[in-house]
Amino acid sequence: MYNGLVKELLDKNGLKIGDFALIEFGNSKEVVKILPNSEFTEKGILVVKLESGYNFGISVDEIDSIEKAEHKEKSDDPSESELQSIELNKDLPQVSIIYTGGTIGSKLDYRTGGVHMLLKPEELIANVPELSNIAMLHPVHLFSIASEDMTYLEWQRIASTVAEEIKGGSRGVVITIGTDTMHYVSSALSFMLKGLNAPVVFTGSQRSSDRGSSDSFMNLICSVRIAAESDIAEVGICMHKDSSDDYCQLIRGTKARKMNTSRRDAFRPINDLPIAHLGIKGEIHYDSDYNKVKSSAEGITIMDKFSDKVALLKVYPNSDPDIINYYKNKGYKGIIIEGTGLGHTSVSGRPEKSYLNNIKEAIDSGMIIGMTSQCLYGRVNSKVYTNLRLLSNAGVVYCEDMTPETAYIKLGWLLGNYNRDEARQLLNKNIAGEIRDRTLYDEFLI
Amino acid sequence: MYNGLVKELLDKNGLKIGDFALIEFGNSKEVVKILPNSEFTEKGILVVKLESGYNFGISVDEIDSIEKAEHKEKSDDPSESELQSIELNKDLPQVSIIYTGGTIGSKLDYRTGGVHMLLKPEELIANVPELSNIAMLHPVHLFSIASEDMTYLEWQRIASTVAEEIKGGSRGVVITIGTDTMHYVSSALSFMLKGLNAPVVFTGSQRSSDRGSSDSFMNLICSVRIAAESDIAEVGICMHKDSSDDYCQLIRGTKARKMNTSRRDAFRPINDLPIAHLGIKGEIHYDSDYNKVKSSAEGITIMDKFSDKVALLKVYPNSDPDIINYYKNKGYKGIIIEGTGLGHTSVSGRPEKSYLNNIKEAIDSGMIIGMTSQCLYGRVNSKVYTNLRLLSNAGVVYCEDMTPETAYIKLGWLLGNYNRDEARQLLNKNIAGEIRDRTLYDEFLI
Repeated sequence: MYNGLVKELLDKNGLKIGDFALIEFGNSKEVVKILPNSEFTEKGILVVKLESGYNFGISVDEIDSIEKAEHKEKSDDPSESELQSIELNKDLPQVSIIYTGGTIGSKLDYRTGGVHMLLKPEELIANVPELSNIAMLHPVHLFSIASEDMTYLEWQRIASTVAEEIKGGSRGVVITIGTDTMHYVSSALSFMLKGLNAPVVFTGSQRSSDRGSSDSFMNLICSVRIAAESDIAEVGICMHKDSSDDYCQLIRGTKARKMNTSRRDAFRPINDLPIAHLGIKGEIHYDSDYNKVKSSAEGITIMDKFSDKVALLKVYPNSDPDIINYYKNKGYKGIIIEGTGLGHTSVSGRPEKSYLNNIKEAIDSGMIIGMTSQCLYGRVNSKVYTNLRLLSNAGVVYCEDMTPETAYIKLGWLLGNYNRDEARQLLNKNIAGEIRDRTLYDEFLI
Repeated sequence: MYNGLVKELLDKNGLKIGDFALIEFGNSKEVVKILPNSEFTEKGILVVKLESGYNFGISVDEIDSIEKAEHKEKSDDPSESELQSIELNKDLPQVSIIYTGGTIGSKLDYRTGGVHMLLKPEELIANVPELSNIAMLHPVHLFSIASEDMTYLEWQRIASTVAEEIKGGSRGVVITIGTDTMHYVSSALSFMLKGLNAPVVFTGSQRSSDRGSSDSFMNLICSVRIAAESDIAEVGICMHKDSSDDYCQLIRGTKARKMNTSRRDAFRPINDLPIAHLGIKGEIHYDSDYNKVKSSAEGITIMDKFSDKVALLKVYPNSDPDIINYYKNKGYKGIIIEGTGLGHTSVSGRPEKSYLNNIKEAIDSGMIIGMTSQCLYGRVNSKVYTNLRLLSNAGVVYCEDMTPETAYIKLGWLLGNYNRDEARQLLNKNIAGEIRDRTLYDEFLI
């Protein structure tokens, strides 16, 4: 509840939470929805939902005028009788939707600011009617955690839930998740699910689903289509392919990266092609090779141990190589370095800035050190320059064309499930599509 | 000098260093040049230059066959009399070329493996004849250091040399440098050179200049053209615009990033348009706004202090927030965090993984903490989600659309030249083109 200046302003203009208002502030003039504040809202700040779909805090000082506005909004809360009239088609393939957070699969309640999960298949279909002809839905609310707050303990819960759902008869699984660390989690699941013989699709939204032009419904529909209709036996991320609403694309879980803070097509394949792209209707277009669902398979097992004594370390000019000792002294078992260019740290310059001795000592003490590139695109190489060969000769494992994020996840997973020597051997060998032999030019920045 | 198995192999086939040989190894068969080994070459490894231009070490075990090959190579060492016959056109604008490392402006001597700098204007013109009609060249050999080995001490020497050259009558300055950290250095110079009223152009090459299809000559020519002919009063990076040899582009020094380990068009503008693009001949095409050279100006001054008690810290899932204390305890004055998405760290999840308290304590102790995004493209935002507001309320400065690398350089520079409060105020205010008010869609991944 607001008080002080904000309450005065609202009361004076006959406005309450949930109302639409025409508001002038700064150089803007637009119709917004009045949202409740929270314990964290600063004093004198009115929280509104902008037409852009974002929640935004405006200082009372900045508001030039505010008045009640008419805003025709179709009610999208289906009544109980409407829900009961929805018939589920039990002949469609079963697809599980596991909610873990993010705004997909939830609806914002404007009165309370709270979020309501769509946990009944009928509710999902009432809100996203396109789903009714694609799959027999099985929604599961696992938890609601911002993706940046998840740890490997949550990833393990997601992995075991996916396995349960597949064993329970689902043809494919969709996981909704906050987008911030989606690519870390999709990497983790790619390694944790052994013998996967079904599509497992992560999706989310970059714009909240109460916005007309939100990406959330299309992302959800395309993800359910992949799960229900494709023969892809891999973990992938399904999000918008470009800034239009024509296509979503499925990116391999170990080769994806969030490359934009806010665009709907923020997720890009790095050193890889998309596996497929598709619209809400029509064919699924396959863009590259992938593991296909087999008619007979061993069945899914989980290999989900994870060592969190692994660090991801970006190295940059002037940086202090003592950071290697810091992790060594804390008992870390491995470090993935995000080096410059082909996989460099300072080595031959000013001695106090050289990483070489610290890296040697860390490796001699039993740590595994892997090298990736902060360029992101391309491949590290341990042979081209002297500094590279010095690091390589000290025992640094050059991680080919893996992203730093995937290399970090892989090393944590390897050290959780294998002994040190096996882990070191496997780090630069392909296990789950994370390493490609050859990098195609087409894959750079398109 | 080689010995052991490599020497045997070379002797048996009548080969010596500098010879061309047809070699079969793995699945490859190609003509290579035999290069000398170095103190770092492992035993049993033959170092060759591939047709691709890269030096490469091949284990003797892998070599299926090797024989002497004819290879017609035109001599590109001009004779002394040829050099003397070159007339310099002293009516052309004077452009300084400062060599700091990298392969541009140098020639590999195949007999010794050593590198010869082209320090006479006549030598440069004999090797790159296109330069003769563009500028009166003034080459300066400052030092030869791999860019990953440079520190701010080298950047300061580059800054003062640029200022000297401009005061000495040069219309513009080109700096050749290794590409790995070129964008860190171009950022540093962008802040260090105050009152710049001339083009200052960084360039380098992704393929060594003894390769036919090297990018180095075109990059050098285009850079000299910008320095000699443009009215751009900024620091920029001039490298290939795409994978063809049609155009180079000039990217603002604070908005560039190396985005590929090996492609010639690896440098991309991040959240910005290129300033200009151009070919070896023809017009310079201006693509966006820039600071123009003024007919009267105060003159260049240097503001080049730099605090290396500043860290760039990438934050990722499961990471240990104790890293903040590590830097605090080492007396660091500032940290730029490379967060996820709109500028997140873990805040509200498992308490042992939450960065919030450590960040609060660091800020309360006097440190400056800035937030950028590991998405690279887009803009951080302190308002959209609760976790963002918690960090922002704790005093984290959200750094708009700055790259993490530029924000790190800027904070080091600010803390070198201003007091703490001024530095904190200036961190998210535009000083050298590092922050744009608005992000254009066109700037994402093209």
